[in-house]
Amino acid sequence: MIDPFRMSAVPRVRFGRGEAASIGDEAKSLNMTRPMLLADPGLSGAGVLGPVTDGLDAAGVEYRLYEEVEPNPSDPSITRAQAFYEANDCSGIIAVGGGSAIDTAKAMGALLANGGKISDYYGADTVEKSIPPFITVPTTAGTGSEVTRASIITDIERGTKSSIHSDALYADVAVVDSSLLATLPKFFAAGALMDALTHAVESLGSPRANPWSQALCFQAIGLIGQNARRFVADPADPDAADPLALAACLAGASFTNTGLGIVHGLTHPVFNFFGGHHGTTNGILLAPVMRFNLPAMRETYARLAPLLANPDEGADETQDAELSIDRVRALADDIDIPESLAAIGAEMEYLDRMAHEAAASSTVATNPVPADAEDMKRIYLELM
Amino acid sequence: MIDPFRMSAVPRVRFGRGEAASIGDEAKSLNMTRPMLLADPGLSGAGVLGPVTDGLDAAGVEYRLYEEVEPNPSDPSITRAQAFYEANDCSGIIAVGGGSAIDTAKAMGALLANGGKISDYYGADTVEKSIPPFITVPTTAGTGSEVTRASIITDIERGTKSSIHSDALYADVAVVDSSLLATLPKFFAAGALMDALTHAVESLGSPRANPWSQALCFQAIGLIGQNARRFVADPADPDAADPLALAACLAGASFTNTGLGIVHGLTHPVFNFFGGHHGTTNGILLAPVMRFNLPAMRETYARLAPLLANPDEGADETQDAELSIDRVRALADDIDIPESLAAIGAEMEYLDRMAHEAAASSTVATNPVPADAEDMKRIYLELM
Repeated sequence: MIDPFRMSAVPRVRFGRGEAASIGDEAKSLNMTRPMLLADPGLSGAGVLGPVTDGLDAAGVEYRLYEEVEPNPSDPSITRAQAFYEANDCSGIIAVGGGSAIDTAKAMGALLANGGKISDYYGADTVEKSIPPFITVPTTAGTGSEVTRASIITDIERGTKSSIHSDALYADVAVVDSSLLATLPKFFAAGALMDALTHAVESLGSPRANPWSQALCFQAIGLIGQNARRFVADPADPDAADPLALAACLAGASFTNTGLGIVHGLTHPVFNFFGGHHGTTNGILLAPVMRFNLPAMRETYARLAPLLANPDEGADETQDAELSIDRVRALADDIDIPESLAAIGAEMEYLDRMAHEAAASSTVATNPVPADAEDMKRIYLELM
Repeated sequence: MIDPFRMSAVPRVRFGRGEAASIGDEAKSLNMTRPMLLADPGLSGAGVLGPVTDGLDAAGVEYRLYEEVEPNPSDPSITRAQAFYEANDCSGIIAVGGGSAIDTAKAMGALLANGGKISDYYGADTVEKSIPPFITVPTTAGTGSEVTRASIITDIERGTKSSIHSDALYADVAVVDSSLLATLPKFFAAGALMDALTHAVESLGSPRANPWSQALCFQAIGLIGQNARRFVADPADPDAADPLALAACLAGASFTNTGLGIVHGLTHPVFNFFGGHHGTTNGILLAPVMRFNLPAMRETYARLAPLLANPDEGADETQDAELSIDRVRALADDIDIPESLAAIGAEMEYLDRMAHEAAASSTVATNPVPADAEDMKRIYLELM
């Protein structure tokens, strides 16, 4: 018997090199007469926005560009975006970026459709009306935010990251064009893909995992394992960028249905106290947390070893859980993910508070092994 | 590089034993004040409808039951259903059945939302406005119609099966509860699962197959290979029925995005000339067509062998394409799918006309190997 589960509808996906050119037609078919184009900071300077705006121009779609998106967007940044949308009498949202623009768009959309303030919607299934017509365009292979029902907001007053999860936040269509990844700096390419790998591994360990979500995760992990090194070496290589872009999407489609585990629970306090790149921190924590979760995950992790075998060393069909964990760390090494939290600035004196924060995370409920503040602290300590 | 592809959003899925009880709540949250409940003929007599109507009654949803659904629904049967919907001032559609009730509901919904007549919508992407709120409830593990954008209609005047494919036909939610399969006669259980297996194998061979659709197909084939015999022996066994119900769903979610191959192209003329059960005919044709497609599919089929190993004979990780084909036929044997088309009444004198009809099928375009009328006839002849 299979435990009951729900799979939410993910957005329609248009995947492929050059598909960004289709965004204008998609906007028109969604009746976006004057969409707001939210872009992560720096994208237009890096030339990443060009294919998107070209597509909109070619279709004669009159958009309003908004580039004031914050990284790890704060709640005030959401209301500023909302004010822009309303002042420009926009209809429809196109969000282009790693996670920040897309998360901003979702939270802004919730306010536009339902009124109120951001903190009204923290938690699950609290957004009633669907947000305006919405297209997502990822520019990293990482968050999977293009296909998820989640928006992560930094609440300035509480000083923590909070999240909104609702079917009302799904995009109508996600346009996934890996040519937009071509100019990613190595640091961001590596961090983002460790984020995607973490999503897939954590989703497999959720008590809400099921054969549907598992199929997506195994595929994502194989695509990452076999192409990650090559992608970080050259994100412009289509043969590496396509698998990574797709893997991020598959992992997103899975975890948004199953929830994540304590890697994410441990990463958020690191950000709250010391900042840093979300994916890099996940990458530091993933192997140690897999070791912590091993008692419950031995059989599943064993299946990951062939998927994570370094392709430069040839195929290896050995199924072995410890080997999988070693290979996660070997991949992290090869793409320059640090081995310790100290390396990204974490300090011993804050570990107790971080551990308590991690233990209060909602991800504990979807981790395969129970974890309390003591466990969290032990994992942090191991990485200092 | 991965060839560009599109994945349409499949309906939200609620999966699990006993989930039929949730249909009333789902109907209410979709604002169905007076849904039309379409049921395949015979379901209420067999007690299959009970859990659904109980769920509606418990939630106080006032439905209108319509049991005049035709097997392989004809175009006039669709307009009769539409007349019932309008006469009863219904709002919303709940379709319970193998494929006929669900296909009837989709076609009826297209007419309700867009006017016109059925033949206006044959083909792909011709239905503009979405159909009324729509819940699907499968009672076989086969067609996958609960999650597809397809409706297959028997056009009386043309004397052929025609199809409508449109995103406007998707259900809002598919409630997949394998306890509804418990009383399936062995013949239908076997035919339906061969239909699902054919969907998964043919979807893998489509030029529109991609790593996302492939992940769903491999999972579906494994679930079928490891549980089919046990399911046919006892469809009331949750440990066998759950995997089969899910496999049908996964195969549906894949093939509705990739298209099918010539098994389906060859099966429809058999039905047009001699009737018979769609899934059984697919089951007869699947292994011979895999042999025909082998030159293009060797690598993919090789991966199926372990998934299709008879679990009573123990696990076998050998990857071998011919072995996979043999195992498809061995499974068909074990669940009493005939070996020849003659056994289900096909006659030699019609093979030429059937072969020409098969060669004109739209499935030829998504078959991995080109196939003309001569090829079709050779495959038919082999099975006489």
